[in-house]
Amino acid sequence: MTKVTNRLTETLNIRHPIVSAPMAFAGGGHLAAAVSRAGGLGLIGGGYGDPGWLDAQFEAARDERVGVGFITWSLRKSPSVLTDVLKYRPAAVMLSFGDPRPFVDEIKSAGAHVICQCQNMDHVWDAIDVGADIVVAQGGEAGGHGALRGTYTFVPEAADLLAKQASDTLLLAAGGIADGRGLAAARVLGADGVLVGTRLWASREALVHKQHHQAIIESNGDETIRTTAPDIARQIQWPRGFTARIRQNTFTRRWHGREDLLKQNLGEESLKYQKAFTEGDSENTGVWFGEAAGMIDTIESAKDIISQIAKDASLLLTS
Amino acid sequence: MTKVTNRLTETLNIRHPIVSAPMAFAGGGHLAAAVSRAGGLGLIGGGYGDPGWLDAQFEAARDERVGVGFITWSLRKSPSVLTDVLKYRPAAVMLSFGDPRPFVDEIKSAGAHVICQCQNMDHVWDAIDVGADIVVAQGGEAGGHGALRGTYTFVPEAADLLAKQASDTLLLAAGGIADGRGLAAARVLGADGVLVGTRLWASREALVHKQHHQAIIESNGDETIRTTAPDIARQIQWPRGFTARIRQNTFTRRWHGREDLLKQNLGEESLKYQKAFTEGDSENTGVWFGEAAGMIDTIESAKDIISQIAKDASLLLTS
Repeated sequence: MTKVTNRLTETLNIRHPIVSAPMAFAGGGHLAAAVSRAGGLGLIGGGYGDPGWLDAQFEAARDERVGVGFITWSLRKSPSVLTDVLKYRPAAVMLSFGDPRPFVDEIKSAGAHVICQCQNMDHVWDAIDVGADIVVAQGGEAGGHGALRGTYTFVPEAADLLAKQASDTLLLAAGGIADGRGLAAARVLGADGVLVGTRLWASREALVHKQHHQAIIESNGDETIRTTAPDIARQIQWPRGFTARIRQNTFTRRWHGREDLLKQNLGEESLKYQKAFTEGDSENTGVWFGEAAGMIDTIESAKDIISQIAKDASLLLTS
Repeated sequence: MTKVTNRLTETLNIRHPIVSAPMAFAGGGHLAAAVSRAGGLGLIGGGYGDPGWLDAQFEAARDERVGVGFITWSLRKSPSVLTDVLKYRPAAVMLSFGDPRPFVDEIKSAGAHVICQCQNMDHVWDAIDVGADIVVAQGGEAGGHGALRGTYTFVPEAADLLAKQASDTLLLAAGGIADGRGLAAARVLGADGVLVGTRLWASREALVHKQHHQAIIESNGDETIRTTAPDIARQIQWPRGFTARIRQNTFTRRWHGREDLLKQNLGEESLKYQKAFTEGDSENTGVWFGEAAGMIDTIESAKDIISQIAKDASLLLTS
């Protein structure tokens, strides 16, 4: 019989094996703190590493024990951002999309757990190699940046490799986990817990415009797409192999598959993208959620979301 | 607490909630019969509908109770193939990739269960509309033809829709299910059972060249790709929106992304593809397996595969 709580909850000293995805822009200090208060571990979305924003978010989290996540290739351009946030003594630092090596020692020295998010088996080997405390196996169903492996096969394959090569390393499943069924499935597939993004993007505490929230309520799981269009529009040079899953809308229908044309019109289109993002025009910008949209009909508090996931998973797995 | 057996095993009168995918060319009568004998339901891969081959496969299945599956858009071109196989009184007929409407009445009149395989929520609505007995929610992790939705989110979203709209309709999860963990996860995600392809492709009874079998043993789950290249090489006109997941090899590296060039060289390249397929040259043809490859290290009997999946799922879900 599979149980919900396990060595992950012991290691992180949390009640439920649920970690919030460090969503750039959307995952601020209020959300991270609410997730931790509810019994999970909240991660602030360090994203591309804006020092002023990060200070404000750790301030917003107050005395709650939270962690933080960074986009690794971006952090290499301004590594002092990591040094700065470590003074807040985060419980964990998650590194996604790029080589974690330059940062692992500094994070461990600060007493924080190192979480490496992986999109394929080569990444998992790398995470083992650098001595990650926790590996996240992220499937392509996830909202925001990611790659192509599906959560359903990636999680058990990663679990098998960890069992053989690094049996003390913990495993989180990510990509498409939005309710107790998703947590229960992750546990039986071999993960110790889950990383939840989209479901918490659709929470009251997330830094998301209410009209973008309305868009997820109205979308089913078919209505997202993996694309490079929003990165081009924002003039952010992502490494090859990573795409962003966002809502299918006027923006994606216009530019997905016409990326070269978008590049030729960046001056105007970047401004339009940013304006629509800020103003909550959910047709003409990137709206950052994943396939789990089809299971989300309401915007709720992070506390209610975490409690419900934990309760429902428990009912599915134990009598 | 979730149990492995359920209304699906009752309805189909089987011991384990496991149905074999009707894999074109690979899933013959011996495999289907072995799956049924092991306590699941075996489906012969009717594929593009070759009457002589189908007669031989039903003959090979002998008195074992099996079903059959067809590629729906292809069956429309030769509907008499369905009429012919119904005389073998299959337990179920599965329809995949296309509008099931023209065939549902004839299948039901013959006393067979109608299984509709779906790749997105519109397909599920269609399956409800035609009165399917069983819906398969197939995620993109699957080997062979399919589409983009991930199994992890598609299954619970389909389960929610069926619960609301057609609560007697049964649900199978497909795409990436290769062991007891996959069956247990499908059950907690809301499916009544699973459709297993890749794991049974890698069985002794499958009609697969031993060198293609060797290729799956050597591949991890990262080493497959969704592409239209093998359909172009075989000169089969598939409808838009469906691609084939096959092994990444010399063939896919040469032609995926250069489909127009492949079309210009069809005379020669089609022959090379078919020759390599037949001769077991697993670098220069389509080798038809999915992301579950990373969990498969041995070729086993269908009986051992089915028994192990059922046993392991049971251990994960019950004490």
